[in-house]
Amino acid sequence: MDNNSVRDKVLAAIRQYDMLTGCKSVTVAVSGGADSVALLHSLKMLEKELGFELSACHVNHNLRGEESDGDEAYVRSLCRELDVPLRVFSVDVTGSVAKHQSTEERARELRYEAFAEISRELGSKVATAHNACDNTETVLLNLLRGTGLKGLCGIPPVRDYLIRPLLLCTREEIEEYCGENGLRYVTDSTNASTAYTRNKIRLELMPRLLEINPSLHEGVGRMTFALGEDSRFLEEMAENAIAEAKAGDGVYLCEKLHSLPEPILHRVISLMLREKDVEPTSLRITGFSEIIKSGTGKINIEKNKFAVVRKGVAEVQVIPQNYRKKIT
Amino acid sequence: MDNNSVRDKVLAAIRQYDMLTGCKSVTVAVSGGADSVALLHSLKMLEKELGFELSACHVNHNLRGEESDGDEAYVRSLCRELDVPLRVFSVDVTGSVAKHQSTEERARELRYEAFAEISRELGSKVATAHNACDNTETVLLNLLRGTGLKGLCGIPPVRDYLIRPLLLCTREEIEEYCGENGLRYVTDSTNASTAYTRNKIRLELMPRLLEINPSLHEGVGRMTFALGEDSRFLEEMAENAIAEAKAGDGVYLCEKLHSLPEPILHRVISLMLREKDVEPTSLRITGFSEIIKSGTGKINIEKNKFAVVRKGVAEVQVIPQNYRKKIT
Repeated sequence: MDNNSVRDKVLAAIRQYDMLTGCKSVTVAVSGGADSVALLHSLKMLEKELGFELSACHVNHNLRGEESDGDEAYVRSLCRELDVPLRVFSVDVTGSVAKHQSTEERARELRYEAFAEISRELGSKVATAHNACDNTETVLLNLLRGTGLKGLCGIPPVRDYLIRPLLLCTREEIEEYCGENGLRYVTDSTNASTAYTRNKIRLELMPRLLEINPSLHEGVGRMTFALGEDSRFLEEMAENAIAEAKAGDGVYLCEKLHSLPEPILHRVISLMLREKDVEPTSLRITGFSEIIKSGTGKINIEKNKFAVVRKGVAEVQVIPQNYRKKIT
Repeated sequence: MDNNSVRDKVLAAIRQYDMLTGCKSVTVAVSGGADSVALLHSLKMLEKELGFELSACHVNHNLRGEESDGDEAYVRSLCRELDVPLRVFSVDVTGSVAKHQSTEERARELRYEAFAEISRELGSKVATAHNACDNTETVLLNLLRGTGLKGLCGIPPVRDYLIRPLLLCTREEIEEYCGENGLRYVTDSTNASTAYTRNKIRLELMPRLLEINPSLHEGVGRMTFALGEDSRFLEEMAENAIAEAKAGDGVYLCEKLHSLPEPILHRVISLMLREKDVEPTSLRITGFSEIIKSGTGKINIEKNKFAVVRKGVAEVQVIPQNYRKKIT
């Protein structure tokens, strides 16, 4: 196996992002696709060397009838073959999907609920098989939407108990690895029908970008890593700042807010809006920032929610619906 | 004229980026192309309202024979027509181009030297005609190279005496503006032969990206603005930190460096490398950071240059060439 193999890159990612410190148990989320199969296999190769206990989980979404059950059966046989204990979750997506929610979103929710359960019960890290191409696609998707720093950080290599050890490997390398190691994998028929934009990026843009820069994924990987550090640092400063400015429940001292540098103030306002379930759009942040600076003001930011600055404090006020009816 | 016209967006950019505070004189760099012609015309419309004195400059690079002189003649006639004082610089690019330098680079150098001269003599801001599409292209170009936060900030709206009031306008809007206002403009025959990558981005990628998100340029514009704030804030923190850590010429206290958060330490190391004319690649920054953290070490970062940490200080050492010969 050459120096750039998936196994080595998985090891590099584990070290670079400090994925396994203080953790003796890793559960791989295995769908049966090339990515998760390669991840399971490479972590099996590293199990002894790194001294963790490997297990797997599979979430059967029951969305594709026999095909779903076939995937589950394949994952069961693979885990037996590799001698990895497996836990299978069978979930009812269609029966539990909420209004205004796509099947895909609900499936994702249930999947991550299963991961959380596994992590709680086994005290393990849960490894998902996102790769370098997924990361680049996510960055482009967010760039196309005109995201801020956070969106440009791509897929987080580590978040709580979740780890993504395949983030340094491209889809090509992963498929090659499966081939070299005689690993079969399933192809999800719904993959072809995922979101329009991501598909356009994957199929139309990516080949052209790779033509311009064949090592695009490495470059973007380095970039998202550095941006992630910048972003976390600024977020931490904002969390400290909002704690310092707090004068009561949801009420913040203007005096403290005034003295914050622009990028921190914007993040603090974003936290204040999120506290009241308001999406922090750049328009709302700018508006709120302006009345904070002017020392007084009130702006309607959402149906019955107002950003209010007066008597030296700033807050997001939520007017109860019936009260609202009276005054309108 | 509608609400989104070039004139209104120029005004919005001037206000948003605070381009004219404390400045009574603006010189537009006019090549004669659609962008600079539209910029000159729209600033002429705003001259009285904003109370600055408008002038223009044109740099004749003498690279395209009669075509160059034709451009100059057109700019002269346009400025006469709009009653804007004009200064023309005639520069010798081919006769002064350095080894390992492209004609294009040298032309750019001479152009910005002329802008600096104008700014010194008239005490004016120099307005260049970079537009929203140029900004998006620059971001994509840097993204493709795997840039850091700085590269994602795009074209700075304000840098020293330079201002870019067209940054909120797309190429399309600018050409429409020229049409509506009966403004003729020249087309630079070398535009078609500019850098391969930028052209690929402009001609092949951009149409596809705009298909996915028709308001791409606005989104990227908002993004680069916010990222610019983040970036400048982090750079300022780094400049303060390096000043605090300084123990002598090019020598910095490890004790101070140790205590810096990662994103600031990386920027400080980047500054230390630049001080000794070393390009701060991520590999060099990571290596230097590691020996700073370990408290001692020496790494070869470039031919005769070393990153050295010992006795509590860190520095970039440059070994004189003849000394190097002796020891090798």
